[in-house]
Order: sequence, then C-alpha cells, then structure tokens
Amino acid sequence: MGARLIAMRLHVVNPNTTASMTAKIAAAARSVALPDTEIDARQPAMGPVSIEGFYDEAFAVPGMLGCIRDADRDGADAHIIACFDDTGLDAARAAAKAPVIGIGEAGFHLASLIAARFAVVTTLGVSIVPIEHNLKKYGLAERCARVRAAEVPVLALEERNADALAKISAEITAAIRDDRAEAIVLGCAGMADLAAELAATHGLPVVDGVAAAVTLAESLVRLGLKTSRLGPYAAPRSKTYSGPFSQFQP
Amino acid sequence: MGARLIAMRLHVVNPNTTASMTAKIAAAARSVALPDTEIDARQPAMGPVSIEGFYDEAFAVPGMLGCIRDADRDGADAHIIACFDDTGLDAARAAAKAPVIGIGEAGFHLASLIAARFAVVTTLGVSIVPIEHNLKKYGLAERCARVRAAEVPVLALEERNADALAKISAEITAAIRDDRAEAIVLGCAGMADLAAELAATHGLPVVDGVAAAVTLAESLVRLGLKTSRLGPYAAPRSKTYSGPFSQFQP
Amino acid sequence: MGARLIAMRLHVVNPNTTASMTAKIAAAARSVALPDTEIDARQPAMGPVSIEGFYDEAFAVPGMLGCIRDADRDGADAHIIACFDDTGLDAARAAAKAPVIGIGEAGFHLASLIAARFAVVTTLGVSIVPIEHNLKKYGLAERCARVRAAEVPVLALEERNADALAKISAEITAAIRDDRAEAIVLGCAGMADLAAELAATHGLPVVDGVAAAVTLAESLVRLGLKTSRLGPYAAPRSKTYSGPFSQFQP
Amino acid sequence: MGARLIAMRLHVVNPNTTASMTAKIAAAARSVALPDTEIDARQPAMGPVSIEGFYDEAFAVPGMLGCIRDADRDGADAHIIACFDDTGLDAARAAAKAPVIGIGEAGFHLASLIAARFAVVTTLGVSIVPIEHNLKKYGLAERCARVRAAEVPVLALEERNADALAKISAEITAAIRDDRAEAIVLGCAGMADLAAELAATHGLPVVDGVAAAVTLAESLVRLGLKTSRLGPYAAPRSKTYSGPFSQFQP
Amino acid sequence: MGARLIAMRLHVVNPNTTASMTAKIAAAARSVALPDTEIDARQPAMGPVSIEGFYDEAFAVPGMLGCIRDADRDGADAHIIACFDDTGLDAARAAAKAPVIGIGEAGFHLASLIAARFAVVTTLGVSIVPIEHNLKKYGLAERCARVRAAEVPVLALEERNADALAKISAEITAAIRDDRAEAIVLGCAGMADLAAELAATHGLPVVDGVAAAVTLAESLVRLGLKTSRLGPYAAPRSKTYSGPFSQFQP
Amino acid sequence: MGARLIAMRLHVVNPNTTASMTAKIAAAARSVALPDTEIDARQPAMGPVSIEGFYDEAFAVPGMLGCIRDADRDGADAHIIACFDDTGLDAARAAAKAPVIGIGEAGFHLASLIAARFAVVTTLGVSIVPIEHNLKKYGLAERCARVRAAEVPVLALEERNADALAKISAEITAAIRDDRAEAIVLGCAGMADLAAELAATHGLPVVDGVAAAVTLAESLVRLGLKTSRLGPYAAPRSKTYSGPFSQFQP
Repeated sequence: MGARLIAMRLHVVNPNTTASMTAKIAAAARSVALPDTEIDARQPAMGPVSIEGFYDEAFAVPGMLGCIRDADRDGADAHIIACFDDTGLDAARAAAKAPVIGIGEAGFHLASLIAARFAVVTTLGVSIVPIEHNLKKYGLAERCARVRAAEVPVLALEERNADALAKISAEITAAIRDDRAEAIVLGCAGMADLAAELAATHGLPVVDGVAAAVTLAESLVRLGLKTSRLGPYAAPRSKTYSGPFSQFQP
Repeated sequence: MGARLIAMRLHVVNPNTTASMTAKIAAAARSVALPDTEIDARQPAMGPVSIEGFYDEAFAVPGMLGCIRDADRDGADAHIIACFDDTGLDAARAAAKAPVIGIGEAGFHLASLIAARFAVVTTLGVSIVPIEHNLKKYGLAERCARVRAAEVPVLALEERNADALAKISAEITAAIRDDRAEAIVLGCAGMADLAAELAATHGLPVVDGVAAAVTLAESLVRLGLKTSRLGPYAAPRSKTYSGPFSQFQP
Repeated sequence: MGARLIAMRLHVVNPNTTASMTAKIAAAARSVALPDTEIDARQPAMGPVSIEGFYDEAFAVPGMLGCIRDADRDGADAHIIACFDDTGLDAARAAAKAPVIGIGEAGFHLASLIAARFAVVTTLGVSIVPIEHNLKKYGLAERCARVRAAEVPVLALEERNADALAKISAEITAAIRDDRAEAIVLGCAGMADLAAELAATHGLPVVDGVAAAVTLAESLVRLGLKTSRLGPYAAPRSKTYSGPFSQFQP
Repeated sequence: MGARLIAMRLHVVNPNTTASMTAKIAAAARSVALPDTEIDARQPAMGPVSIEGFYDEAFAVPGMLGCIRDADRDGADAHIIACFDDTGLDAARAAAKAPVIGIGEAGFHLASLIAARFAVVTTLGVSIVPIEHNLKKYGLAERCARVRAAEVPVLALEERNADALAKISAEITAAIRDDRAEAIVLGCAGMADLAAELAATHGLPVVDGVAAAVTLAESLVRLGLKTSRLGPYAAPRSKTYSGPFSQFQP
Repeated sequence: MGARLIAMRLHVVNPNTTASMTAKIAAAARSVALPDTEIDARQPAMGPVSIEGFYDEAFAVPGMLGCIRDADRDGADAHIIACFDDTGLDAARAAAKAPVIGIGEAGFHLASLIAARFAVVTTLGVSIVPIEHNLKKYGLAERCARVRAAEVPVLALEERNADALAKISAEITAAIRDDRAEAIVLGCAGMADLAAELAATHGLPVVDGVAAAVTLAESLVRLGLKTSRLGPYAAPRSKTYSGPFSQFQP
Repeated sequence: MGARLIAMRLHVVNPNTTASMTAKIAAAARSVALPDTEIDARQPAMGPVSIEGFYDEAFAVPGMLGCIRDADRDGADAHIIACFDDTGLDAARAAAKAPVIGIGEAGFHLASLIAARFAVVTTLGVSIVPIEHNLKKYGLAERCARVRAAEVPVLALEERNADALAKISAEITAAIRDDRAEAIVLGCAGMADLAAELAATHGLPVVDGVAAAVTLAESLVRLGLKTSRLGPYAAPRSKTYSGPFSQFQP
C-alpha cells in the first residue's frame, strides 16, 4: 500500500464576506478532504457580499489577500481561493509561501482529464468574459466548448432553490445538445452541493471546483510542489503601502 | 477644415501613490493633449508607491477605482489608467460612465498601426508575464515580438538617470537585432519622457503609452463612444461592501 | 489645458471611383476632424466604382496608391484608406512617408477599447472572408464575435435607403442576440452616416471606421509616429515598372 | 478534519516490457500514494523494451490496452499510463470503465498550478514532436516554453547514471537561462527518482509525472469522476477483431 | 509538353480487415491514378473490421504498419493510409523509406486549395474529436468550419445505400447553410464513390480523400520528396520487441 | 495500372515582367509536368521586373490577373502564380473558372506531408512578413519554424550565382541548427533550380514551390476540383472599371 498520510492544513478562503457561504464551502471541502487534512475556512472582513463581475472582484482581493497572508503565517500548507473567477490568484501566488489554487482552474484541469470538451455553467452573464479571460490565460480555452450563464445570482444559491436548480439544469441540457459538451464544470463555489445531483440527472460528469481544488491542493502538498519564485510569482519587493493597506506592505 | 474643438476633461490616474510620478505623467499628458482638453491627474491616497508585479497591482486597484469614481462623478469625459499593466482596467470600465483606457493597451494599439511587429521594454522581469497576459487578452500577442525587461525599478525612472537609460537602450538594441522588432512600446508610465530620445537614437518608432492613451481617449470622446454596457462592463449590481470599501459599494 | 493644435493635412482616399461616395466620406471625415485638420479627399481615376471582394480590390489598389503617392508628395501628414477591406494598406505603408491607416483596422482598434467582444456588419457576403483575413492579420480575430453581411451592395448606401438600413439593423439585432456582441463595427465606408442612428436604436456603441480613422490618424501625427522602415514597410527598392505603371516606379 | 480515506486500487501500467522499469515506477508511485491506495503495477508481455518515438508507441499500445482491460476487469479504480508520451491514452479512455491519466498530462497540469511557464526535459530528440502534439491537443502548448531533449536513451535511466543526470541538468540550466522556464517537467517515467535532487540543485519546482499522476488519479477516484461517455470516449462498438487482437474485440 | 511519366507503385493500405472495402478503395485509387502508377492495395490480417474511434485505431495500427513494412520492402514508392483518421500516420512515416500520406490530411490539403473554408462530413460522432485532433496537429483547424457526423457506420457504406446517402447529404446541406462551408471533405474512405454525385447535387466541390491522396502521393514521388529523417520521423532505434510484435522490431 | 492520362494545359504566370525568369520557371515546370500537360508560361507586359515586398506586389497584380483572364479564356485547365508571395492569389481565384495555385502555398502544403516542421528561406527581409501573413491565412503558421531571408535580390537568382547559393545554404544550415527545421521550402520562384543541389548538400528535403504547384495543379485538374463559388471566390459582380482597367471589368 501507499505512503503515510501527511497531516496538512488547507486554507480555503471565500473571497466574499458572506459567512453562510464560507460555511457551505468549508463543508464541501471537508467532505472530500483527506483524514489528516484540516480545512481552515476564512472570509475577509472587508469587501463585497458576493462576487459578480470585475468590479466586485477588485474589492474582494485585498481582504482575500489578507486572509492568505494570515493563513500563510499561521502555517497553511496550501491555499484555495473559493471563487470561480479565481479572484486575485496571481497576486496570492506572489504573496504566499504555500501554493495557491483557484477553484476555477481546479475545475478546468480535472475536467480536462475526463472529457475532450467541457462546458461551464456559471451564475450571471457578467461573469462569462472574466471566466473566458482565465481560460485563455490558462491555455485551456480550446477545451471549453462554451461558458454559459444560468442567470442565477450568487446569493440565490445559498440555500437549496428549485428555481436556480432548474435554470442550471436547463443550461446543462443546452450544453450537451448544442455545444457538444461531454462534461460540465459548475461555475460558482455556491453550486458545490449540486454536482452529484446534476451528474445523475444528466448522465455526464459534473465537476465542482471546490472539491477539485481540495484534492489538487493536497496533491501539491503531498508532492512538495510550491509556486516557482523565478518568474511573476517572485516575492514582492519591499516598498511603502499607504492607507488601510500599510498592513499588507511587503 | 474640421469640426469645432470639443472641450473635455481627461482624468489621468496614476495608480500608485507617488506624487512626483503623477506630476510627470500629467506633464506628459498635457504636452500632447488638445488645447481644449483639461488634464485632471490624480493618484490614490492608499496603495503602493510603485506597481511592480501582481501583488502591488492588487493593492493599487481600490484606490485607483476611488479616483475613477470621484472623477467620473466630477464629470470626467474619459479616464486613463497610467500604469503599463493596465491595472484594474476591466473593473474601471464597469465602474465608470465615461470610457477608460489603459496606457498599455494604448501603446499596443498605436504600435500596431505603424509596425507589423513591435517589442515592449518594461522595468522589471516580474512584469513580463502580467504584460503578456494582457497582450493575450487584447488579442495582440502575435503582434508583439517579445516583452523585455531592462531590470530598472519603476522609481528609478523618476528622474533622468543615465544608467536606466542605458539599460533600456540596450534592450532596444537587442529587440531590433534578435526579435525583428520594428517599433518599441515603452513599458512604464515613468518612461514617458524618454520616447523621443530613444526613437532618435535607434531609428525606429518608440511609443509612449501615456501620450498614446491621451489621444485615444480624446478620440473616443470626440466620437461619442462609451464602454458598452451589454457584456462584462454592465454597471455593478447593488450590494453590500464591508469595511473600508463600504464607500465603493455599487 | 493641453498643447497647441497642430495644423495637419489628412489625405482620405476613397479607393473606388465613385465621386459621390468620396464626397460623403469627406463630409464624414470633416465632421469629426480637429479644427486645424484639413481633409484632402481623393479618389483614383482608374479602377472599379465600388469594391466588393478580392477582385475589385486588386484593381482599386494601383489608383489608390497613385493618390497616396501624390498626396504624400503634396505634404499629407497622414493617409486614410476609406475602404473597409483596408485595400492596399500594406503597400501604401511602404509607399508613403506619412503614416497610413485603414478604416477597417481603425474600427477594430477603437471597438476593442469599449467592448470585450464586437461584431462587424458589412455589405455583401463576398467581403466576409477578406475582413476575416484582416482580423487574423491584425491579431484581433478573437475580439470579433462574427463578421455578418447585410447583403446590401456598396452603392445602395450612397443615399439614405430604408431597405438597406433595415437589413443592417436586422443583422445588429442578430449579433446582439446570437453572437454576444457588445459593440458593432460598421463594415463599409458608405455606412458612415448611419452609426449614430443605429447606436440609438440598438443601445450599444456603433463604430464607424471613417471617423475612427480620422482620430487615429490625427493621433499618430500629433505624436510624431510614422510607419517603421525596419521591416516590411521599408521603402521599395528602385526598379523598372513597365506599362501604365512606369509612373509608380520606386 | 477531512473525510474518511477511500480504499482504492490504482493500476499503473508501464507500456514497455522492461520489468525493472515497472518496478522503479511502482516504487515511485507507492512512495506518494495514499495509505489506502494499492498500486497495481503491470507491464505488457508484448511490445518494445522502451518507447522512443512514434513507431515504438504504436507497438506498445495493444499490450498496454490489454493491461488496462485486465486491470479494469479486476476492479481498478483508476489507471495511469506511465509513459511520458501518454501512449494510447485516448484509446484507453474509451476502453476502461475507470478513469485514465497519462503521466505527461499529469505533469503538465500540476506544473500549470505552480508556474506561469514551464519547460519539459525529455530523453531523445525524437520525442519532442510527440510531446508537442500532446501539449497542443491538451491546450497547454502556450504554457510550455520549450520541450528539450537531453539525448539520454530511456533505458540509460534505469540505474543512477551520472552522465545522464549531468545532461538533464544542463538542459534545465539552459531552460532557466534561455526559455524563461519557471518550473521543469521531467519528460520520462524513468526520471521519477531525479526530481527532488534536480529541484534542489536548480532552485525551481521539478515535476515528476508519475507522482503527479498518482495524486491526480486519486483525486478523480475520491471525487467519483469518471471519463465521460458522451463524446470520443464512448464504449467501442461491438465488432470483429482478427488475429492476435481477437481477444481485445469490444 | 511535360516530362516522361514515372512508373511507380503506390501502396494503399486499408487499415481495417474488410476485404470488400479494400477492393472499393483500390478501385477508387486506380480510377484516378496515372497510367504508369500501379496500385498495390493491401489490408492487415489482424485488427478490426472497421475503424470507428480511438480504440479501433489502436488495434488497426500494428497490422497496418506490417503492410507498410512489407510494401516498403517490396519497393513501394509511396504509401497511402486509407482511413480518414490517418490512423498510425506518424508511426508509418518513421517506419517507411518511402513517403506516407493519410487520406484525411490529403483531403484537407486539397480542399484548402479550392476553398477558404471547408467542412468535413464523417461517419459517426465518435470520430469527430479524432479528426479535430488531426486538424489541430496539421495546423488546418481554422480552415475547417466544422466536423459533422452523419451517424452512418463505416460498413454501411460498403454498398450503395440510399439511407446513408440521404444522411450525408443532409449534413452537407446543413454545412452550407449553417457553417458557411464552401467545400466538403468526405470523412471516410468508404465514401469515395459518392463525391461526384454529392458535388453535383449540392453545387460545391466535394473532396474524396482517397483520390486526393493518390495524386499527392504521386506528386511526392515525381518530385523525389521523401519524409525528413531529421525530426520525429527518424528511423526507429534498434531494440527488442516482444510477443507477436517481434517481427516488427526495428 | 491507373487511369488514362488527361491532356491539360497549365497556365504558369510569372507575375513580374522579366522574360528570362519566365523562361526559367517554364523550364522548371516542364521538367516535372506530366507528358500530356502543356505548360503555357506567361508574364504581364505591365508591372515590376521583380517582386520584393508589398509595394511591388500591388503593381504586379493587375497584369498578372490579365494573364489569368486571357489564359482562362484560352482554355487553361489550371493556373499557377509563380511568385512565392502568392501575389494576387485570392483575386485570381475569383477571376478564373479554372483553379489557381500559388507556389508559396504549394510549397507549404507539400512540405507539411514530409516534415512536422519546416523553414522557409526567401530572398530579402522585406518579404518575411508577407510570407508570414500568408502562412497565418493558410493556417500553416505553426508548421513553419521560421521564415529566413538570405538577403539575395530576386534578379540575382536569374543565373547561377555562387554567392547567392552560399547565402541560401548558410540560412539552411542555421535553420537546421537553430530552428529545428526538418525540411526547407525555397522562398522564391527563381530558386527552382537549386532544390536538388541544396537537398543533397544538407541532407534534408528541399521543396521548390514551382514544381510543387505543377503537381498540385495537375492533381486538381485530374480530380475535377475547381474553386468553390460559394464564398469569397464567387464570380465578381458586374460593374464599371475606369481607366486602363476597363478591359478587366467583370
């Protein structure tokens, strides 16, 4: 049999300020994490209650980076950014000693291992282009048949919601029929609890980014792989930060 | 002869907190602006003194967006983000009623009109990948032969600096010889005053992003073109922002 | 306030031989040009009455280049090629001392500053592939959702024409609904007078290439940027040209 | 803490017939596998002793698929193809009920999580194009700075070999200096034991595909994700196979 | 008039074991071959009766390579692989002294000479992704509007079949209407006899890969062009092959 | 044995006015053409003595199209444009009833059949970008490692010239060493007589575009394949052409 289990602490940051969503994400993470993996779920005190588009992202990042910094100092072995736009991912990589994974990229990478062609179903249309930008940046744009929006706001997913489920399900139906999608990546951390049900309904793999990111983060830790410091993720140069951000000064 | 001059106010935001750099950028902008164009140069009170890489960017954006919001309310006809990484550009487009241009994209677009193939010379190696991400996002990556770094920190460019100039010049020489570059885009707002001299030295067009952005912003205003609201730049949905960001709440 | 106005002469060449169209283009150019910009509109004596596809382009180029050469000798500060296919643009860049802009590329570049994704509505289906070739050459193909043809011949646009307008409008409706277009670029110089009306009707930015090119050409002149001579736009080598083209011999 | 450990059996197939290499791969796999993961390492009885280029691949695939079929029937929870060319990966996905991962793709995906840009160092030059084909197929070609060959035959890696190590190390040095590589993916299953040493020597992350594939395969099993049957990986249609392949008939 | 005819022998290998299909392919090849070209049609004794998807491909390759090897030793001047997936093409190039052409690539290359944009109509949906992989590998993906499947099994094409013809014809109609296809490439060797009829029916060029490959193979032979040995198609290194494949050992 | 030989007339147009070059091209064409293929070599009376860059191209096209039109009326079965820039190819396709092939594309397509990766060696640096534009338009840019210029003017190739040969040979050496080129495409019609010698010297396939185009044109004729009229190559619409071009009016 295999090697010994490595005890590790995964910091899962919900970049918005909605505590109930953090709890839901933490539960999703714990339900798949390894026995010796501690899930340390955090959320920033400052920033938006949900992230829907570029503007919300901008104000979610500083608080999220604060969580990353604190958890990194507290000894996190890896960080997961639990927003499907992978909000602030590049900055977090430069900030943290431990490796960082976004749930968007996690979903794309695992979907690429089980399907030649996947589709994304996200919340609002305003998030389509941010996700497309990421796909292009990661190189996986050609693997994604289409990014679809169910037009369900993020916070409508906090509790089980038949209407939201129906809208998401309709987009999956369309993705199979019109986009030749072979697998679905759910495009919001708040959809984590729907994956199994949707997979059963539609008869294709449905990937939840939170769960995907947990196993990928554990993979990096188990393999001792950390973010390279040779390129854009070198530690930030020391300099003065003014105002409320002086605490973040590198 | 042509039409009447349109009086307009261009907001030029230096996303870092270094006032002397704002002054230098403002002077560069004024030196090319139209007679009836008022240059309203601002800088945030909060954030880093210079932007070198993804981490600095993250903390520059909120303050920069505050400047955008204020100037937009004050009646700016267009906004220019005077950091070559086009820091926060997408969020600014969603936030502002007036159109927004980054000096990076401005440089790339104008260079594309005078050369089949250009190179970028920026400050530090840590900025190469952020600039490459932008080029890919804009679609202009194939027009760019290479992004080179002179390994000159941003603030070393505040005053005329023979050593910095020599390093930048050496990269231009290499870009012509090794990359088949036909034109150069200077990859930092702080290089605005060097374009003419470098063009003369090397015998090829050298594009400064600040100047380029001024004329492009004036172009959009004169043509009545504003950011489309149909896609990712729709006005942010109303929601609660906590902490120091409550003032930015949409 | 900004700098002094630079007096300049913009040569706008209509590459077809239809004088009424030249007049219309000149009026469109003058209506947006700066006060000290003189619009010098020309058309070749030889060539087709309209340009619809690759074959017409081929016979429009020599006469167009003659206009470029003459206007360049007459002291033009910049040249605009007022055909949406950017007919002969590369040859004109090699031929002229002053910079040269095509109205197609002008439209694409400005649309890229106000939308993540635009569509083109051109005249006839035969022009779709030439425009797609250009988008690929410029690098902006991924920014363009789709090139659509209204199936309206170029010369049907000479005068206001309800049928033509309806067809173009229908394509814009389809581009918003089916292509996720956020902005429209009008794909013919003869559509210059329709931009404002179509923008109002459809509630999105509509870019006219003629107007876009005027402001971009003024931008290059104001910034002192000229076509690079280091690459494919080096001055043509001296050699013999036979027949009617001996006058064009470099 | 996290969930219960899932007992699983990972089938790791060495597609060549060299038993000592299978043993080495199995050891590498076991050293990173989870405590309840059983590594079932197999190798085909028919085929080449090593895989170097397209021709060897062709004759390795049937035997490898036989191992996949047998292990699948024996209840494997996932399969790993332990050849860096990901030999027969697409066929294996169609053949197996359990998910299948190639060590090449595993290395590329994990490297993408810790570096913006990685390089591959493989054995012989003849393998560069096969690997490039895969990178293009997976969509990750733009993340790979360059595929380099150390010109070390596969079987020279069976035992510790100072000469081979020096050649691989020299390519890593070149990749950092010339290709702007931030991380290295080792391009042969036989290099699995060199990763840690090379990472320490060169100060950048070095990814071994075998280890990467083990954690990714475990990830898929833990998440219940299986190859989609909707597209090219549908179960093969029933039909006659002649000759030695009748046993493989679907 | 031109040069003397070169007597040559073209080996056309049907990679499946269905003799009637070999005969049909041979007839198609002979009907277009030059007078002094001998068509040597072969089929493997081992392998599947038809190739539909990745799994069948894997078991078709060894037998097909056996035919290539034998025909190469027998003095074939060129080889044609008569399966539209270009099954085993890369391995065959490494194996043979004479050049090798796949009927898929042959169809794509000739279609590119008569249309800006073509569509493929193949047999089953399971073959779409393999063909797309090839188009990407060859570089011609952007020339192909879409790969369509008529959902006709390969062996249903052995004899004239009104139902199959109707399904293929319906896909061509859709490709013209919905994909802006200007030409069609028939995506199966078994469709060779339908090209002329479908071209007449639909009024566009219809390319049969078998015929295309014959003329291209003759072209290479007439020009003395052989597969380069400098890259991935170098002759396989000598090594031991076990089991039924020992006969193929390089 | 194969089918009967088809008597055909291939029109080979040298788009420049240098008769000796036409003779050389005609000889090269005849040396590879089929016995029943008549080579009808023409050159325009108007235009440049050689084509080096975009400007020369523009003035070569009308005369070349005149040759195409005349030869088409005279019953040419196919046309070959014997300039490596494929000057006027798209317009010629729209103009002619018979299919048209450029020697550039012919070289690229055949090289793609014998090498994974080829390099081009052309005359002057000014032609690199035009050739790169074509490679991108054709879709084959990724197959081409690099376009190199030997800095030999076109007319220096009229007669055997040791200096020119040495320069071309040096670029081939560099392409093998630095670009990983497996085959060479000679980038000028005037190099047609050097292919065999250079192939022997460097030990890799060297493709001459003229010879390649002859066999491809014969292929299209033998297969009855003509340019599709459904897209951009539809016959030009009837309209007035003024001046010396009235004779070309569609």
